[in-house]
Amino acid sequence: MPLKIYNTLTRRKDEFKPLVEGRVGIYVCGPTVYGHSHIGHAKSYVSFDVIVRYLRYLGYKTLYVQNITDVGHLTDDADEGEDKIEKQSRKDRIHPMQVVEMYTRSYFDDMDALDVVRPDISPRATGHIIEQIAIVQKLIEQGFAYEKNGSVYFDVTKFKEYGKLSHRPIDEMEAGARVGVNPEKKHPADFALWKKAEASHIMQWQSPWEMGFPGWHLECSAMSMKYLGETFDIHGGGMENQFPHHECEIAQSECATGKQFVKYWIHNNMVTVGGQKMGKSLGNVINLKDAFKKYSPLVVRFFILQSHYRSTLDFTDEALEGASKGLEKLLNTVRNLREEVGKLRKLEVKGSEMKDSSFKSQDSIFVDLVGFKKAFLDAMDDDFNTPQAIGILFDLSREVNTILAGGKAEIKILQEADALFNVLGGVVLGVIPAHVEAQSLEGASENDLIQFIIELRAEARAQKLWTMSDKIRDGLAKLGIIIEDKKDGTTWRLVSS
Amino acid sequence: MPLKIYNTLTRRKDEFKPLVEGRVGIYVCGPTVYGHSHIGHAKSYVSFDVIVRYLRYLGYKTLYVQNITDVGHLTDDADEGEDKIEKQSRKDRIHPMQVVEMYTRSYFDDMDALDVVRPDISPRATGHIIEQIAIVQKLIEQGFAYEKNGSVYFDVTKFKEYGKLSHRPIDEMEAGARVGVNPEKKHPADFALWKKAEASHIMQWQSPWEMGFPGWHLECSAMSMKYLGETFDIHGGGMENQFPHHECEIAQSECATGKQFVKYWIHNNMVTVGGQKMGKSLGNVINLKDAFKKYSPLVVRFFILQSHYRSTLDFTDEALEGASKGLEKLLNTVRNLREEVGKLRKLEVKGSEMKDSSFKSQDSIFVDLVGFKKAFLDAMDDDFNTPQAIGILFDLSREVNTILAGGKAEIKILQEADALFNVLGGVVLGVIPAHVEAQSLEGASENDLIQFIIELRAEARAQKLWTMSDKIRDGLAKLGIIIEDKKDGTTWRLVSS
Repeated sequence: MPLKIYNTLTRRKDEFKPLVEGRVGIYVCGPTVYGHSHIGHAKSYVSFDVIVRYLRYLGYKTLYVQNITDVGHLTDDADEGEDKIEKQSRKDRIHPMQVVEMYTRSYFDDMDALDVVRPDISPRATGHIIEQIAIVQKLIEQGFAYEKNGSVYFDVTKFKEYGKLSHRPIDEMEAGARVGVNPEKKHPADFALWKKAEASHIMQWQSPWEMGFPGWHLECSAMSMKYLGETFDIHGGGMENQFPHHECEIAQSECATGKQFVKYWIHNNMVTVGGQKMGKSLGNVINLKDAFKKYSPLVVRFFILQSHYRSTLDFTDEALEGASKGLEKLLNTVRNLREEVGKLRKLEVKGSEMKDSSFKSQDSIFVDLVGFKKAFLDAMDDDFNTPQAIGILFDLSREVNTILAGGKAEIKILQEADALFNVLGGVVLGVIPAHVEAQSLEGASENDLIQFIIELRAEARAQKLWTMSDKIRDGLAKLGIIIEDKKDGTTWRLVSS
Repeated sequence: MPLKIYNTLTRRKDEFKPLVEGRVGIYVCGPTVYGHSHIGHAKSYVSFDVIVRYLRYLGYKTLYVQNITDVGHLTDDADEGEDKIEKQSRKDRIHPMQVVEMYTRSYFDDMDALDVVRPDISPRATGHIIEQIAIVQKLIEQGFAYEKNGSVYFDVTKFKEYGKLSHRPIDEMEAGARVGVNPEKKHPADFALWKKAEASHIMQWQSPWEMGFPGWHLECSAMSMKYLGETFDIHGGGMENQFPHHECEIAQSECATGKQFVKYWIHNNMVTVGGQKMGKSLGNVINLKDAFKKYSPLVVRFFILQSHYRSTLDFTDEALEGASKGLEKLLNTVRNLREEVGKLRKLEVKGSEMKDSSFKSQDSIFVDLVGFKKAFLDAMDDDFNTPQAIGILFDLSREVNTILAGGKAEIKILQEADALFNVLGGVVLGVIPAHVEAQSLEGASENDLIQFIIELRAEARAQKLWTMSDKIRDGLAKLGIIIEDKKDGTTWRLVSS
């Protein structure tokens, strides 16, 4: 089954055929760095992370570009209002670039925690002002844009296909509530390519027009085409950016180059909180740093992938706790499986030393691992259906548990099952860590050691070796560990707790 | 004693007086991101980290800007040769911006490990092409620069003070071995502000001249003045950058603005390896990631600060091991001190509950903590003399050990000593971690526990309790720990190693 991707442009699942055999160029709209990332960012970037991981798993040499918006994103959708970053900088009384620095770092910290693989290139809007100016110049020369009072606007009436992504006719945009009334614009739907800046505006640059800054939509055209070419395979982003952001990107890019901009448009759906839209004005935004205090990043990641990227994801404590339990079940299986493989491997070494292979069970259970793998890949090929793919991992988990319980496991089968968990659950989905077995294989934990010492003391007491028993109690105390004999056995605690 | 800084410009220790009361602007030349950071980077950025930390400790509101050079740094000092980043990108067969992304991340990872506080702003050269072009335009207009074949050069003969930082007369530069012969230049010492790029050059931008890229020196002028103003307090960098890099920065900045560029120039010395200069051509460059395999980042940091920033630092295994031992001694004192404070605090709580204050020693030893603090600050005020400051910490450590051994410690004195270690050794120098006591207070380490179990076994054997002794050996084996009896005692290892 070939990979099929739901393409917003065609409104159907299209078979994926890259522009260049074996290679994929993908651009995803990155964050505007004026605040900490929230659960909505997590949904978006975890979704695209799995898409990139899966493309790489399929063997595509994938160049992943994701921008950092550090200028030009205004508080109002219709090219008006304050620059979000300057607004935050005034609030914090620091330079806008300090705001950018702080929240870019915060963003990557959160993404690293979620095990989101870093983009190959993370270009900044402020790092590509010249490239943006060059596109504006081209558009003016070719008659698609006009200057007015030092600002430059794109003339939507000149691009016949305007609206082809969001499927909105231009007429509807005329009276749209979200389209601001700007007397400089010829058509209400025209959008800014370059905005003249007030003197008080900190982030501004010289240009062939007035001192100013680029329109928000422009950066993505400039940076994607710079690193991926004038036509590239995949452009991703949040559904809320279909219009106007991505519609404007298409218009300005295709008019500037005369070529198709992007072949496949992928849009992820949003997060709701207890069924409600999440938003600053509603006061229900859940920052990742807060979420991580309650749930491990791995649980958050697993939770996100348990729903499809095109579905809304409802964030509730119950749902997160459910995800946490589900993941723990899965990881328990993997842990048990790896332990069993480790044991059998040791036996095998001993067995081969004794030139005796009788330890291999002859009547071991048949498991259709190929079938599990195929089902997983089928799910992923069907527009990256991660909930279904995770379902397959649970099926596999149940099967493995049955084998382990039966005690007639053949090491080869178990190793192959382990490899499946590793590759499909680990490499592709990023929900099964490679070190989940660390605890049991790489040496005993402190807990195990203390438990063992307590057992030794019980043994000494049973043999009435009172000196030894006291020595153990005192020795542990010196290490800061207090043991307490209770009715149902001996417990321990740290001095400080 | 006021803070004195050795100023390369005046060649003496100048009293530090900020341009604006209570505020400091500091710019430090950052890395060219085409490879992993080495021990030389660590010396430079740890040194400036302590300078920034100390300025903040003194109460200065300090804005710290450190650039990332991601274009324009050529392999030849005299404006010639390949761009270092493009060269690496051809080697790795990836886009130059992927090289930049990879090594910028690697750089910050290493600096984070060294506990180097992040700069407030880390501007990229590619993010400031327009600002650089604006300076070139100004210099041409004012007659300090000229265009030749699409490139632009600074005319050193027009700036009478050229050479004032490095104290080199222009005449000497004429025949200098490091000054390349470029027929486009009027004077051999003229330097490039803008370089026309060959078509094959990937990193190039449109400009009022030919498509090209900025000269390396220009970025630092553009970015420092953008964020710190046309005149700012402190500019730092490596001694090897005094000429030509910083000399050129002064020339182009002061000619463009007509103002003094920088008040205090601070230069750190270099690292040698076993007495030899460290360099790629010599094949003796020590990458931090390799160094960290042998020595903890904290030891490397401590090692660096044990010598003065203006001294060369000789990297040898013996020296690093010495630093490691010295640091361990210091941290042991702090650990013991904090434990004692913890114990006394509990006693104090009990004491106050019993309304009895007799636990306080009446004849406690007097310690001149104010004197230690003053000595530490005097050392730091004397051009950031960290080796001397660390010496004071060792003096304090000896004193604290004496008090602890005497057993007549008064909690107030110990708490104050602890606070000194925290603030001077922790906040200012960054060599005493806040959590140094974690190991002993938050539970024993695995190592301690295993060691204790081995002692129990020795005890059992001494008492001829063979069953017990065997039980211990087998129990550890079950936990994956193998013990081996050797001539000079019992050692242990993990099964897997």
